[in-house]
Amino acid sequence: MNGHLETNPATKQQFTDDEQAVRDIRKLVIDCCRQNGAGHGGSAIGMAPLGVALWKHIMRYNPKNGDWFDRDRFVLSNGHAAIFLYTMLHMAGYPDMKLDELKMYADPKNVDPETGKWKHTICHGHPEIDVSGVEVTTGPLGQGVANSVGLAIAAKSLATKFNKDGHDIISSRIYCVTGDGCLQEGVANEAVAIAGHLQLDNLILLYDNNQVTCDGPADWIVSEDTNAKFRSMGWHVIDVFDGDTSVDNIVGAVNIAKAVTGKPTLINIRTTIGYGTSTAGTAKSHHGTYSSEDAVLYAEDVSKSEAHVVSSRTKALFATKAKQGEKLEQEWNAKLESYTKAFPEQGKVLLGRIEGKIEYEDLLKTFEMPKDLMPTRTFNGKLFKNLVASIPSVMAGGADLWGANQLGDYSHTIFDGKHRDGQVIRYGIREHAMAAISNGLAAYSPGTFLPITATFFMFYLYAAPGVRMGALQNLKVIHIATHDTLGEGQNGPTHQPVEVDSLYRAMPNLLHIRAADPEEVVGAWQTALSVKGKSIIIGLARDPPKVAIPNSDRNKVAKGGYVVVEKENAQVTLISTGSELQFAVVAAEKLSAEGIVTRVVSMPCIKLFDEQSEEYQDSVLSETPHIISLEAYVSTIWARYCTASIGMTTFGYSGSGNANFARFGLDDNGVFKKVKAHVQKTGKGTKQKRWVQL
Amino acid sequence: MNGHLETNPATKQQFTDDEQAVRDIRKLVIDCCRQNGAGHGGSAIGMAPLGVALWKHIMRYNPKNGDWFDRDRFVLSNGHAAIFLYTMLHMAGYPDMKLDELKMYADPKNVDPETGKWKHTICHGHPEIDVSGVEVTTGPLGQGVANSVGLAIAAKSLATKFNKDGHDIISSRIYCVTGDGCLQEGVANEAVAIAGHLQLDNLILLYDNNQVTCDGPADWIVSEDTNAKFRSMGWHVIDVFDGDTSVDNIVGAVNIAKAVTGKPTLINIRTTIGYGTSTAGTAKSHHGTYSSEDAVLYAEDVSKSEAHVVSSRTKALFATKAKQGEKLEQEWNAKLESYTKAFPEQGKVLLGRIEGKIEYEDLLKTFEMPKDLMPTRTFNGKLFKNLVASIPSVMAGGADLWGANQLGDYSHTIFDGKHRDGQVIRYGIREHAMAAISNGLAAYSPGTFLPITATFFMFYLYAAPGVRMGALQNLKVIHIATHDTLGEGQNGPTHQPVEVDSLYRAMPNLLHIRAADPEEVVGAWQTALSVKGKSIIIGLARDPPKVAIPNSDRNKVAKGGYVVVEKENAQVTLISTGSELQFAVVAAEKLSAEGIVTRVVSMPCIKLFDEQSEEYQDSVLSETPHIISLEAYVSTIWARYCTASIGMTTFGYSGSGNANFARFGLDDNGVFKKVKAHVQKTGKGTKQKRWVQL
Repeated sequence: MNGHLETNPATKQQFTDDEQAVRDIRKLVIDCCRQNGAGHGGSAIGMAPLGVALWKHIMRYNPKNGDWFDRDRFVLSNGHAAIFLYTMLHMAGYPDMKLDELKMYADPKNVDPETGKWKHTICHGHPEIDVSGVEVTTGPLGQGVANSVGLAIAAKSLATKFNKDGHDIISSRIYCVTGDGCLQEGVANEAVAIAGHLQLDNLILLYDNNQVTCDGPADWIVSEDTNAKFRSMGWHVIDVFDGDTSVDNIVGAVNIAKAVTGKPTLINIRTTIGYGTSTAGTAKSHHGTYSSEDAVLYAEDVSKSEAHVVSSRTKALFATKAKQGEKLEQEWNAKLESYTKAFPEQGKVLLGRIEGKIEYEDLLKTFEMPKDLMPTRTFNGKLFKNLVASIPSVMAGGADLWGANQLGDYSHTIFDGKHRDGQVIRYGIREHAMAAISNGLAAYSPGTFLPITATFFMFYLYAAPGVRMGALQNLKVIHIATHDTLGEGQNGPTHQPVEVDSLYRAMPNLLHIRAADPEEVVGAWQTALSVKGKSIIIGLARDPPKVAIPNSDRNKVAKGGYVVVEKENAQVTLISTGSELQFAVVAAEKLSAEGIVTRVVSMPCIKLFDEQSEEYQDSVLSETPHIISLEAYVSTIWARYCTASIGMTTFGYSGSGNANFARFGLDDNGVFKKVKAHVQKTGKGTKQKRWVQL
Repeated sequence: MNGHLETNPATKQQFTDDEQAVRDIRKLVIDCCRQNGAGHGGSAIGMAPLGVALWKHIMRYNPKNGDWFDRDRFVLSNGHAAIFLYTMLHMAGYPDMKLDELKMYADPKNVDPETGKWKHTICHGHPEIDVSGVEVTTGPLGQGVANSVGLAIAAKSLATKFNKDGHDIISSRIYCVTGDGCLQEGVANEAVAIAGHLQLDNLILLYDNNQVTCDGPADWIVSEDTNAKFRSMGWHVIDVFDGDTSVDNIVGAVNIAKAVTGKPTLINIRTTIGYGTSTAGTAKSHHGTYSSEDAVLYAEDVSKSEAHVVSSRTKALFATKAKQGEKLEQEWNAKLESYTKAFPEQGKVLLGRIEGKIEYEDLLKTFEMPKDLMPTRTFNGKLFKNLVASIPSVMAGGADLWGANQLGDYSHTIFDGKHRDGQVIRYGIREHAMAAISNGLAAYSPGTFLPITATFFMFYLYAAPGVRMGALQNLKVIHIATHDTLGEGQNGPTHQPVEVDSLYRAMPNLLHIRAADPEEVVGAWQTALSVKGKSIIIGLARDPPKVAIPNSDRNKVAKGGYVVVEKENAQVTLISTGSELQFAVVAAEKLSAEGIVTRVVSMPCIKLFDEQSEEYQDSVLSETPHIISLEAYVSTIWARYCTASIGMTTFGYSGSGNANFARFGLDDNGVFKKVKAHVQKTGKGTKQKRWVQL
């Protein structure tokens, strides 16, 4: 596109098809940002040629079926530029992405006076996963880059497992657009390092390098040589210097990138934010509305200022592409059929993966239970070995605490740069990317991958924004969190979560399950494997308990809480979880022996208990005057069921696990003393005024 | 140190002073890991020459006064190698770091049978800030690297503000040791980028490059060119290839680094984990104990296997250094005296900074309050401008949402590579490093800096591990968190916290304060500025309220909660916070008008309310049969004071702020309807069985 055309936008005959498409995209973006006086249009305008390059010339997709299994995946990591994606999906002919939806972009979404219902659109402020053509929800910067690494691992893994000579059944590539912002975030830096290390040559990262951030020019905050940085991490790098104007050069760069083997590619595309508009090249163009002059800047005919109009020429261009997409999928379906005939065994497995079915019931039923007292992390490691071996969709990984997590030796099934058919990824000391990459694995296609992560519970705080994005997208990711209290011991308060559970227990769509013994570990996995649309954290202890938990029951874990020690005419109900349940059991015995009759409830998942019927809740909680929780965490979350709680009010301590429980009055002795004193103080039959911390 | 000496450790006369010191350090580390059969000795053994280089040849410190203001700062980012630091501090003659303390390293720390008290030591599993010679608590990987950047900013800022020709009153340098692990973490990558951008040439990062991590060889998880990566981010890089044996080469490298201007320096030191021991060079040496052969490996005389012995030669070596350190401080004290005489005005300010006093009372008292309804973020921005201008210790910064945080134009007082005297840092889109760097600023010397950070509340989840480390260390860092509910509007659920408060309200040593109006913003700052040893998050809303809050009171914020609408014979107490308080006030009016007499409590900080007397709590909560909270967050944290709660149970939505509140039934209408229905259902005078979510 030559400069002079910008000065004379009415001369439409001078534009090539691509140029006209770029103009139409820019026009529509500006219109959508003007319609409600808000939006993030600047990057979208700058990226218009990139949009044409990808959706017209590069990507394999069928707009009629956004779920086509072997489609190329596109991720907009700079999710605030959502209107770019919506505009492209509209142009490309995704049937849901109607013009009426685009017209709702940035609408206040009040109640519709006509229907009395809340207004809704699929054109949210940031792209959301349930929209056809949107692979992952993005917005929090850096997440999309990491998600793309997960998608690339997924495609690479499937291709290795299933492709045969003459039967390239998996050929999906991952295209991710990133802005300056994503590349500053730690999570993206971690993910970029992992992608280089894993040599993911099916991943192409397109850097919308417009040198402007939300607050101002990028050089206020960045002075690195991004190309050199990526090269140092094993990436191939290609420059495009005229990203505002040249669809061809972007297409050329992508084609080179596709030919690169053993390395992911960064295409560093220089663009201008708000290209051509009155605020071009400035932070003002980052978000907000555009002027009336800007509104006609890319109009087919400046004398007609009608908004939301796409030229017939561009419509025809993308209609052709849509037809090609339909054909692509038809051809692939034929390929799949011939594949399953030629390789019936692998074909069956592949179809199972596509279908996303997990079979685990038999495994859990028949798994041999230990006779000795055993740390939950140790038992979990044994069970896990069998889960990995028997569930092909498992793609697990740890953050350099795999040994301490006691997950065992998986050197025979590593996924790395050399080994593509393994089920275990060494993520390195990169917890945040581990979680975000796992989201990408889960998002590849529902159920095709069952991502599992592992580290200490404390370090799920590093991973938290990634874990949250998994929950937000209803992605099923299972997180194995060992060393889940100050019982971890010597590492001290920096490694001892006392408040992290409060975050995860409050997080929607996430189940935090603490297993008290091997039986409950099986129960936790039963729940984790069967539940749909949720992420799960399984909390496990470092050390073995001193006593066995009576009546622990895998099948009751799904109810959230259940009675393990029942007593008639009890005055106290002790509720506990995980490694502290043993102390509750012993303390209850001692209390009962002294006439303070105490029953015990195990509540591995308070959120699942919340969902039970009032009747069931009553039966578990009983009507004892005292209902007291015990947990080595800050205990305020228990107030909804308890009259009092025993827990932490400070950070932990560096000592042995058992000494730590005792030091903070959380062991059987401490609990016995606190409960006894409390009952004596408040009277056997009297509830105190409100919940108290003991 | 030549190889043959390793084979004949009894020939002590062949060692130089440095070599003997290296051997003594290694011996002591091995002894300390053997004494309780645990520890992280491997890196410590490898780093012994580095220890001698720094503590003997390089660093300016006075072991007698670990708080000497102009000391060089040392940070052990790979905090698990704590025994390295303890050994060095013991060798260097820090009086608290007695051999008896080292002997307690990895002790279970049970009750001492003699005293009946819990055993204690300053030799924790990870270094903790309250120990003389430990600048910051480290352990969670990557934090220390970012803390060091904060310390370096602090020294650079002070040097610029106070040094005069012939009066170099501030010459502190920052030395940080990092392992492979820290450099993989996102937070360190963010901090390294910032340090390069800010051209912090007073920062030297010493990379203990031993190529082994917790789980195995580093090349399992890392394949980047670390030197090239640092260079791409504006660092100078120096290699040391014989870090196991050459103190001289490390000293030489540091001296080169000290001469570099305009860039921080990475010294990439090749070492062997567990050098010389039976597990040298393997992950087995990372943590755990050592063999009896290892125990005598570095003994002065192999025939004497006594543990915890340091040669008299090494003792004498460090005694000389300690004397020099004492003299250094004496000279500096004289310098300070002559400085305050020569520059009485700056001298006074400097002494105030050293003392760490903040004066703010007058400012808050006289600050003009707005007449119109105003978003709390807007008012906060105005107040903030005055705080920055009048409190010289403020070092504030944002994560590229400074404009949206409405904190105003600070282009006149930026701290960056060119401007060293400013008070505002542009951290870029690096929330995690922002928090961790702020911890470094706060840790420089108590009160010398008052670090303030700013971003959306949601993105404090990215920063959470850094915020936690601030709270854990009792560091005073103030976090300005705007857009603190789904009232932020169009960005949608990715930007709308519904569970982040649960984390921060449970976190020890941290106050989460939500201001409902300008009056409470002043109250929040009053509390934030006056409280000691805590980190503070101030939550602020994007949009203006529709009604004024009656009886809001800055002086009551410190009590956590107080009555804003009192009614006699009330049936309902509505408790709310922040932007939702306006809805509670209006709903209460409507409810009262319909005969459901409702009073209203503002509870800007539930944790401060927890600390009040039962009597005060009773007076605020009253004895209304219904106590109902209203907040646009998951509401389980309110159960400790409430009979029922109105809040979120899902993630948010992309719509306008007001529409969002209404959509989820959180506005005045929604609250009115829910409370009315609940009271009608449960009866005016009857409390329901337990807390319920409305």
